Amino acid sequence: MMKRLLITGAAGGLGTLCRARLGHMADTLRLSDVADMDPAGDGEEVVPCDLADAAAVHALVEGCDGIVHLGGKSIEGTFAEILNSNIIGTYNVYEAARKAGVKRILFASSNHAIGFHTRETRIDALAPMRPDSLYGVSKCYGENLARLYHDKFGIDTAVVRIGSCFPEPKDHRMLATWLSPDDFVRLIERIFTTTRLGYAIVYGASDNEECWWDNRHARYLGWRPEDNAEVFRTKLDGLMTPPDSDHPAVRFQGGSFAAVGHFEDD
Amino acid sequence: MMKRLLITGAAGGLGTLCRARLGHMADTLRLSDVADMDPAGDGEEVVPCDLADAAAVHALVEGCDGIVHLGGKSIEGTFAEILNSNIIGTYNVYEAARKAGVKRILFASSNHAIGFHTRETRIDALAPMRPDSLYGVSKCYGENLARLYHDKFGIDTAVVRIGSCFPEPKDHRMLATWLSPDDFVRLIERIFTTTRLGYAIVYGASDNEECWWDNRHARYLGWRPEDNAEVFRTKLDGLMTPPDSDHPAVRFQGGSFAAVGHFEDD
Amino acid sequence: MMKRLLITGAAGGLGTLCRARLGHMADTLRLSDVADMDPAGDGEEVVPCDLADAAAVHALVEGCDGIVHLGGKSIEGTFAEILNSNIIGTYNVYEAARKAGVKRILFASSNHAIGFHTRETRIDALAPMRPDSLYGVSKCYGENLARLYHDKFGIDTAVVRIGSCFPEPKDHRMLATWLSPDDFVRLIERIFTTTRLGYAIVYGASDNEECWWDNRHARYLGWRPEDNAEVFRTKLDGLMTPPDSDHPAVRFQGGSFAAVGHFEDD
Amino acid sequence: MMKRLLITGAAGGLGTLCRARLGHMADTLRLSDVADMDPAGDGEEVVPCDLADAAAVHALVEGCDGIVHLGGKSIEGTFAEILNSNIIGTYNVYEAARKAGVKRILFASSNHAIGFHTRETRIDALAPMRPDSLYGVSKCYGENLARLYHDKFGIDTAVVRIGSCFPEPKDHRMLATWLSPDDFVRLIERIFTTTRLGYAIVYGASDNEECWWDNRHARYLGWRPEDNAEVFRTKLDGLMTPPDSDHPAVRFQGGSFAAVGHFEDD
Amino acid sequence: MMKRLLITGAAGGLGTLCRARLGHMADTLRLSDVADMDPAGDGEEVVPCDLADAAAVHALVEGCDGIVHLGGKSIEGTFAEILNSNIIGTYNVYEAARKAGVKRILFASSNHAIGFHTRETRIDALAPMRPDSLYGVSKCYGENLARLYHDKFGIDTAVVRIGSCFPEPKDHRMLATWLSPDDFVRLIERIFTTTRLGYAIVYGASDNEECWWDNRHARYLGWRPEDNAEVFRTKLDGLMTPPDSDHPAVRFQGGSFAAVGHFEDD
Amino acid sequence: MMKRLLITGAAGGLGTLCRARLGHMADTLRLSDVADMDPAGDGEEVVPCDLADAAAVHALVEGCDGIVHLGGKSIEGTFAEILNSNIIGTYNVYEAARKAGVKRILFASSNHAIGFHTRETRIDALAPMRPDSLYGVSKCYGENLARLYHDKFGIDTAVVRIGSCFPEPKDHRMLATWLSPDDFVRLIERIFTTTRLGYAIVYGASDNEECWWDNRHARYLGWRPEDNAEVFRTKLDGLMTPPDSDHPAVRFQGGSFAAVGHFEDD
Repeated sequence: MMKRLLITGAAGGLGTLCRARLGHMADTLRLSDVADMDPAGDGEEVVPCDLADAAAVHALVEGCDGIVHLGGKSIEGTFAEILNSNIIGTYNVYEAARKAGVKRILFASSNHAIGFHTRETRIDALAPMRPDSLYGVSKCYGENLARLYHDKFGIDTAVVRIGSCFPEPKDHRMLATWLSPDDFVRLIERIFTTTRLGYAIVYGASDNEECWWDNRHARYLGWRPEDNAEVFRTKLDGLMTPPDSDHPAVRFQGGSFAAVGHFEDD
Repeated sequence: MMKRLLITGAAGGLGTLCRARLGHMADTLRLSDVADMDPAGDGEEVVPCDLADAAAVHALVEGCDGIVHLGGKSIEGTFAEILNSNIIGTYNVYEAARKAGVKRILFASSNHAIGFHTRETRIDALAPMRPDSLYGVSKCYGENLARLYHDKFGIDTAVVRIGSCFPEPKDHRMLATWLSPDDFVRLIERIFTTTRLGYAIVYGASDNEECWWDNRHARYLGWRPEDNAEVFRTKLDGLMTPPDSDHPAVRFQGGSFAAVGHFEDD
Repeated sequence: MMKRLLITGAAGGLGTLCRARLGHMADTLRLSDVADMDPAGDGEEVVPCDLADAAAVHALVEGCDGIVHLGGKSIEGTFAEILNSNIIGTYNVYEAARKAGVKRILFASSNHAIGFHTRETRIDALAPMRPDSLYGVSKCYGENLARLYHDKFGIDTAVVRIGSCFPEPKDHRMLATWLSPDDFVRLIERIFTTTRLGYAIVYGASDNEECWWDNRHARYLGWRPEDNAEVFRTKLDGLMTPPDSDHPAVRFQGGSFAAVGHFEDD
Repeated sequence: MMKRLLITGAAGGLGTLCRARLGHMADTLRLSDVADMDPAGDGEEVVPCDLADAAAVHALVEGCDGIVHLGGKSIEGTFAEILNSNIIGTYNVYEAARKAGVKRILFASSNHAIGFHTRETRIDALAPMRPDSLYGVSKCYGENLARLYHDKFGIDTAVVRIGSCFPEPKDHRMLATWLSPDDFVRLIERIFTTTRLGYAIVYGASDNEECWWDNRHARYLGWRPEDNAEVFRTKLDGLMTPPDSDHPAVRFQGGSFAAVGHFEDD
Repeated sequence: MMKRLLITGAAGGLGTLCRARLGHMADTLRLSDVADMDPAGDGEEVVPCDLADAAAVHALVEGCDGIVHLGGKSIEGTFAEILNSNIIGTYNVYEAARKAGVKRILFASSNHAIGFHTRETRIDALAPMRPDSLYGVSKCYGENLARLYHDKFGIDTAVVRIGSCFPEPKDHRMLATWLSPDDFVRLIERIFTTTRLGYAIVYGASDNEECWWDNRHARYLGWRPEDNAEVFRTKLDGLMTPPDSDHPAVRFQGGSFAAVGHFEDD
Repeated sequence: MMKRLLITGAAGGLGTLCRARLGHMADTLRLSDVADMDPAGDGEEVVPCDLADAAAVHALVEGCDGIVHLGGKSIEGTFAEILNSNIIGTYNVYEAARKAGVKRILFASSNHAIGFHTRETRIDALAPMRPDSLYGVSKCYGENLARLYHDKFGIDTAVVRIGSCFPEPKDHRMLATWLSPDDFVRLIERIFTTTRLGYAIVYGASDNEECWWDNRHARYLGWRPEDNAEVFRTKLDGLMTPPDSDHPAVRFQGGSFAAVGHFEDD
């Protein structure tokens, strides 16, 4: 059990989930976001922070044993948005970890780091990066930065290429990409309790029938997802019709991110 | 749900199975064979057809949304037999599909397309073709033809390299190659309802303990077999003794097809 | 040195080349084609033959030690054309070889057996077949037939996926696919004199600067091409402009074969 | 069912397990060790033997249908110890099998044959050998010897790279390497009853959550482990703390064997 | 021949080389740098530009047919330096290219994008990125950005992972990593004249005896280096002694970049 | 330049070659064999030694900077012969090196460590070991021992799987396996002068037209063979006829070693 586990992006969807579910992993959860957060409860510290502010991030990380780095923009945006939150912000987090001696980090990457692989392509942790958006490029950047900090400075990271982490799948694509909140929590538990983490790339998806990703290189972590999006198929079929078979949002693993155009800077 | 699903080879073993079990997938099942068939029931059309007759096949395919192409010779035969039913017949089906605008086909290929791989060789969809018979050569031909029609004309095909689809395994080899009728039906359902089919090679075998084939490249279809031939092992042990360990029918995946000689033309 | 070497398709471009250049490899060259041929010279036999005529092919093959099987249609055609010359014809040649005890064959396959791989894709002998035309499908068929006759009947074959064998490259694509006549002759010499042939897939291209194909699996044959299409680049640049970068004839290895539509049967 | 199954190393831990659990596989279990053994029970023969004594081993093997070769030193030792029991002893067993016509052997290899792969490295049967000790080198030697006797003399062997076969895991590393006695017995049953064994390399580990090894190349044997070390995790957590994340005994698959120094000869 | 070819970083070492040697490739060379440059000569335009200034970059790129993007910091630096020149600067170049319709770019990446692979590791274009510095991370970022602009917007890029491009090798490591100026110029010529560029990753090294990188996936470009660093070995031996065999600068491909620590921001 | 380079097996064929050709690599060549050797010349020490005698080997190795370990039996023999010279002898050499602090060794392995791969199989350093003889098994053992001493004790080794090192090829198989003495000497020079050796597996064959082995993983050593057995083909053709195409000595890379039976112990 850790003394203090930092969660960045704590006000977001995944952050809210983690805040509610990870209390057992540390004496104190340090919760941080640039957006408003609920006041600290028992075993919590609430530390507002803009990840683009290096000094603030260094203060934030000081005294923590582990980091669940969820912070930053999580959808396509303008370059300026991506740059500040994801490129500068992630650098600040890793550099602060190096200085503060934090040795274990979960970096919330995304399937959009590999979203231009086609749906028919079975990929594993060794597949070439193939981002589908500026957002995806920033996630590739974070993965490579984490690898540098592992190779050079001995900081262990689990890169989790999160599929679609919601209470239930919202469209047909998510029947393949869905990561149940329970499976995500179990994965986080493994990452912070396994004897050795090293540098691992994990596809964050439940044990769905439809499956594009192969996690064999991460099996040493001991995580086997238990949930299956298939139970939601009939419900989804009643709610919507998926796009045509040749639509870019269907052909590519990244879905609509691969289909959308450029977001102009203001 | 499709309007009209064509099943070729409807009078054969697999065809009879499909006729009985696929009614829910289309308003109308169009059933075709060169052999006699039972009269059409509700939701059925019975259309006798020799697949070697191009004009007849074009008429047969017209108006269909999908094709389960089971027709043709399904065991080793003389070249003349193979040529007419499997080589000319399959060409006629694909060419008719192109003209009629049919976009989704299940092509019943066979494990005999790869039957000269040894039993100790784990193969997946990328393994080189290695036919064990003229019949196997014709199945390789059909797979390559389907790929051409996919790459050039945009017709999606699931090539199913069927193992041994019977109510239960008939010999010890089938403990590895058995495809339960239920698993086959579930596979067909996936093929015609998945958002995107593309060009997929699927090994048609249930979730048997003994296993030579790896379907990871087809996992995007969402098919996971549920049955297991192992439950029949004791019964088979009581009925027969398998051939010697070094017999060609044991050494090669194709079993007796790899061991049998040439079938002379008349 | 062989007693009698059969060359099918002897009236065609490659056949003419072989007739002129392979005399030293056998006491007698038996030359065959369905088209007219020049009268037999010293050390030659001229045997007209339609490859679709099984009995004639059996007579043709009888008494030969090796076969250079060039016969059949060598460009896209209607299915009827392809069927007769390439599918039936090649079967007749292999079946005749089996009966006559011929143990070594060069099968002139084509790059069009793999022509739908993109130009950026480096492929070797293990790459999946990906035909770009009905012609390409027939070449895949011949390769698989040859493999069956090797695995089951012990006949050795060198499958040569010929690029573009002409005195010099005719367009920019051939700067990558060109096989000089000299290199082709040297390859044939290797195939019929190597201690062991087995079943080999060889890409028939010279040592060109641009290169899509990797022949490492055939290096045991001892063939290293010596010519290089690059010397013709300046001349070609002066003669023509290649198609646009995104044209299908440029994107795919098969060139115009991948771009052309279907040839209707009459 | 075999007439006589030989178990070497029958007095050791695995040998005792096999003696108690394999009686149903043969009319007679022939039990051998250089150490004292309990007297023979029903269906048992007790034959003391020093595996380094060639003549004694030949007598021991004569009349057997199969061999479970567990004998020899099973931990790191001096070179003299390893040499006699594992290098000379295993040669004697294989050479005796060749002369006596025994065609099926289980060779108890060890994960220490590959123990210098890191924990993050997913390996299968094709991974390079990477021994972590003189003991591990002797197991590599035995595997290669068995392969020679397979390739040259037609003796089939299942090389089982045993993880940690105990009633329950004894430390955190064994949460990944544990092979339950039940799973081991089921594996032995498969090895001696499968229609064809050939030469198989099997990682001997149960279906544990943490997993470094991939048994896909051995799936043709039909063995799927059923137990899972995970049920012992909480108990282990209460008993001990694993070594630091960067300790060699954690970084490498071989655990403490990779961390220990050289054992001096006396 | 292009109308206008833009060279960024024109005042640097590689830029000076290109300025002197690429005049024959375009009617006009547009030369740009944030540092001082020599006045424009015949067929030249000199356009000072800070790559971090988006509007200036857009003006710079307008009207060009191709870009040799050498600009940015080319050694390890502080994050602020890397961020401005390499991360923001490269984005500006690609975004300007998209808007201006430039379809072909050479992106000067670096071996430091993969510098944490060990010297004994043979890598090709599919090897995982493994940066050895913040500089290396920025090059990985540029490669991924280029891939996005290729996959989504159809801009072709040759990523050149330059080894050590100097008149001659400066230390023993460069005997493996040296890229002769002549070979670099020949590579640039290929990149801008090949019929199809697509997205290519090329290791920029001459035909040196010592070799860590495999360019087979880029052979379709037709570039074969001709020079060989070996001719400088004796001279180097006389000048210096390489570091010890286990020094990080020797163990890792990135040399001293892999050995150097973090550059603090001011 | 080394102070003292030890050559074991100095009286044998390769040893004689090395004695004559490696004088420039060290102040002193220490020459050792169990057989008679010529008296020491300038810069030579002659130290008779039985490699099976541990104490003698330790004395032999003391004071050396490098070892060219050629000693031991180099053809198939009885197990007793192989055991003493190759298994015990090689252990003694490595253990002595560990104690004496020798950090760089050339271990003369053999193609017979992989001799049961077929001639049609292209193999590289990652190919599974597949010995063709007890001799081959002992070479696999030596390779694994060397890997242990590298991984655990930091001793670097170049494993050279020598093909056929003679002044010229003696039969047709050697047209593929020939290693010219000049190429061997150049390889040894590289091994002892390269900045970093690590653990390398090198196939010892010249740049022959026929080629079964791929040395790409050893390219970092900077060795490129220059000779070519092809120049001897005509001469060989005049002297002998190779065995039949299906003879085991032709089918397998190990040649006659794969075809010969067991050598009985006396």
